[in-house]
Amino acid sequence: MERENAESLGGGAGKRRVTGFHAIEAFVRRGAGGGSVLYAALKTKRTLALTASARAAGIPVRWTDTRFLDTLCPHTEHRGLVLELSHENPHHRGLSDFLLSFTGEKGLVLVLDGITDVHNLGAIVRSADLFCVDAALVPSRHSAKDSGVVAKVSSGASAFVPLIETPNLTRALLALKEAGFWVYGADMAGESAAETGFAHKAVLVLGSEGAGLSRLVKENCDGLVKIPSSGHVDSFNVSVAAGILMYEIRRQQGFPGVGV
Amino acid sequence: MERENAESLGGGAGKRRVTGFHAIEAFVRRGAGGGSVLYAALKTKRTLALTASARAAGIPVRWTDTRFLDTLCPHTEHRGLVLELSHENPHHRGLSDFLLSFTGEKGLVLVLDGITDVHNLGAIVRSADLFCVDAALVPSRHSAKDSGVVAKVSSGASAFVPLIETPNLTRALLALKEAGFWVYGADMAGESAAETGFAHKAVLVLGSEGAGLSRLVKENCDGLVKIPSSGHVDSFNVSVAAGILMYEIRRQQGFPGVGV
Repeated sequence: MERENAESLGGGAGKRRVTGFHAIEAFVRRGAGGGSVLYAALKTKRTLALTASARAAGIPVRWTDTRFLDTLCPHTEHRGLVLELSHENPHHRGLSDFLLSFTGEKGLVLVLDGITDVHNLGAIVRSADLFCVDAALVPSRHSAKDSGVVAKVSSGASAFVPLIETPNLTRALLALKEAGFWVYGADMAGESAAETGFAHKAVLVLGSEGAGLSRLVKENCDGLVKIPSSGHVDSFNVSVAAGILMYEIRRQQGFPGVGV
Repeated sequence: MERENAESLGGGAGKRRVTGFHAIEAFVRRGAGGGSVLYAALKTKRTLALTASARAAGIPVRWTDTRFLDTLCPHTEHRGLVLELSHENPHHRGLSDFLLSFTGEKGLVLVLDGITDVHNLGAIVRSADLFCVDAALVPSRHSAKDSGVVAKVSSGASAFVPLIETPNLTRALLALKEAGFWVYGADMAGESAAETGFAHKAVLVLGSEGAGLSRLVKENCDGLVKIPSSGHVDSFNVSVAAGILMYEIRRQQGFPGVGV
């Protein structure tokens, strides 16, 4: 399991730094944005292969020493490679851009409100990639989480899931509704997800594990859904709950990219 | 979110020591087994309430000082309470006992082969409790995981999920099959879980995140199932995959304890 030490990263001058071979590989395949640089310090089979692919993908490679990489990422084991993303990652767009370009008849948008644990966030982003989520919205105040750390703990999946930072979640939900999406909030007081007929264009809102959805967010949902369960503990781990609800929505919509 | 520091525990002479209020509470409600003792050192509202419930449940309470608790659990923040379980937890039975007493027409048994990350294991046990899994089998060589650590990271759910340690997984799968269970292994090369008609008595086998199911275990499965997905990363986090597959099986069987 890819559960590497994931701390610090994200450095001065708005630069995002990504470590971890899986994560860097994902950015190389997906595109890292103009102005990105791959710093390399150790010549191993893996780093040589990755620097070659980076160069082929148009990402400049700068050979340096491990001491320099240590200063770039002082608290992370970089294993000889650090990808410094340009400040403007072209993969990150605003909600209005997304809605203008979205033409699908079926859609699934994830809204992550207050999920701060990076391992949970990483697992959710992995599931979002595998279920081909069209976009994931995160409040701007948590934008720090959309960084090298999440790239690493999600095994690089964050390079593939369109992440949209939004300064105002309520306004974002209204814009999604105006664009024909139905907004479902995950809440233990909701209707059973297995009994819910999900819309073809669905938004799934997940709150923090402790506090759940805020009152304001709940009020802006078209419906609340829960995972039918009994048992003794209060609730599922939030990344498990997110995975199950995404599965149920995609099961009803038809799994994208899966020939059945 | 209950994501406490979970290390050490499990001490000399086969004693299992549980810390964390949620976990201790769960054992007090479920029964901790004869010979268990609750050591208490700090008088707070929470510890006083818990010691009272413990006494009411027949668990002797011994007041001591924090230094003694430190020696019991040198690497864990105990917050003034340590539950020392008797060596023989009555909740832990052998597979033959389970099969003799199991009379349900529908059943779900989980087999966890090689899942060693405690946070994943904790999240899986939480889901297993919420989906009323009838039993969870773990190979004896991993029995250390069925301990205070898992109790804590599963928010106490491990007190409610019947855990069965088995010295021989192949033999255990054969015994389950003889008892009328169908054995499904989680494998990316399997059939879509959404297209699989699961048996009323189902066993779900999960392998480790890196290596997956062993060849021998695969050979002993009646079928292999996968979560339909596309995307770029290899696979779901194992606790997410376990949650989705348990959900799909219970959705087909009917969620136990849930009035629909």
